[in-house]
Amino acid sequence: MIGTLYGVGVGPGDPELLTLKAARIIRKVPVIAYPAPETGPSLAHRIATPHLPSGQVEIVLRMPMSAEHFPADTVYDRAAHDIGGHLADGRDVAFLCEGDPFFYGSFLYLFARMAAEHRVEVVPGVSSLTACAAVIGAPLTARNDILTVIPAPLPDDLLADRLSACDAAAIIKVGRHFERVRAVLLRLGMIDRAHYVERATMDSQRVVPASAVSAESVPYFSMIIVHRRGAAFRL
Amino acid sequence: MIGTLYGVGVGPGDPELLTLKAARIIRKVPVIAYPAPETGPSLAHRIATPHLPSGQVEIVLRMPMSAEHFPADTVYDRAAHDIGGHLADGRDVAFLCEGDPFFYGSFLYLFARMAAEHRVEVVPGVSSLTACAAVIGAPLTARNDILTVIPAPLPDDLLADRLSACDAAAIIKVGRHFERVRAVLLRLGMIDRAHYVERATMDSQRVVPASAVSAESVPYFSMIIVHRRGAAFRL
Repeated sequence: MIGTLYGVGVGPGDPELLTLKAARIIRKVPVIAYPAPETGPSLAHRIATPHLPSGQVEIVLRMPMSAEHFPADTVYDRAAHDIGGHLADGRDVAFLCEGDPFFYGSFLYLFARMAAEHRVEVVPGVSSLTACAAVIGAPLTARNDILTVIPAPLPDDLLADRLSACDAAAIIKVGRHFERVRAVLLRLGMIDRAHYVERATMDSQRVVPASAVSAESVPYFSMIIVHRRGAAFRL
Repeated sequence: MIGTLYGVGVGPGDPELLTLKAARIIRKVPVIAYPAPETGPSLAHRIATPHLPSGQVEIVLRMPMSAEHFPADTVYDRAAHDIGGHLADGRDVAFLCEGDPFFYGSFLYLFARMAAEHRVEVVPGVSSLTACAAVIGAPLTARNDILTVIPAPLPDDLLADRLSACDAAAIIKVGRHFERVRAVLLRLGMIDRAHYVERATMDSQRVVPASAVSAESVPYFSMIIVHRRGAAFRL
């Protein structure tokens, strides 16, 4: 009698971009867990809400989002302990993860703590990567394109080097690094081919040229997509 | 009275990895289009089957899959013409695309022909990239990892260079290039950290170490995922 921990990708934000499998699993498990900001509602929980039956146990991981405290080891430690208790008692647990659990997902911090000793299954989800491409309305990659995903917190030289060595790039976790990233894109002559996206597929979604963004408004979960080939797509 | 062309990602193979939005759209449109091999059933159509009402018009794109004929321009030209006719008559059309339409998707060849003159909307899907990570059971990327997606048909030196410049790599379209790719991975000392996946999330799925694969059995749609950090995942 041991339970399974499901890492369930709930997609980028639009509740309709949940998969049928994710909906089935979060409907049937007796325990759900999900990340939430220090105060206020959880995006992952909001996406899943239409499918959640009443009476489920909820484990809320309230995450301190300041750069200094993130990731919040004690929050994950305690959640791993609580979830482990449910699994040991034979109850399945679904962790709701924005996007895809194995693609820079918040689930990774639980996975690192629990995979060695528990049965874990991951349900892949629509990632922010392809969601951003869809809302921009431009293909991400075709034929033999090389795609690189680059976190914005990395040093300028590394950013510039990797941006120069691919056909399409997604710069993630832009947030407070926006001004630095923009300077790199300017230097490389790429700024006019850079699309900025925040909250892709949500009602509050914003899709604009990277050159039109003011740095102080950029949230952590934002992305810039750059194509070497520029705006015109030809095959 | 003009119709919309939907590029609908139907996910990597498991029919449950379809999104709720994809299911809604393919249920309501009067016309569907989908790729199929020269003979035999279409994977994209099989995934969508449970949601298709009777009476839809079906446009089947029978693709010659040999390396010499691919992509088959005349097949796409004719499909674009037929689909354009339905759109002009006010009928919406959904093109069923394995994985995600904008991530190396077969939809791109229609998009290139039709986006300038028609209303096109893309519904993102679960990509083979995160599906492969899920079935391997190992995180693709965490924290500030750099991820690169590299098509196997590219030259050895380029493959080696890009593999050396990231934390996680996905080598796609392996097929008849397997032996070359394996030689590159051997040379870089990466072969023991390389997972081979074919038909991810399907009943016939195969997940094995890349070192255990015999080259003659490798289909076009197969993938190798390599992590710099190796099998042990730590955060």
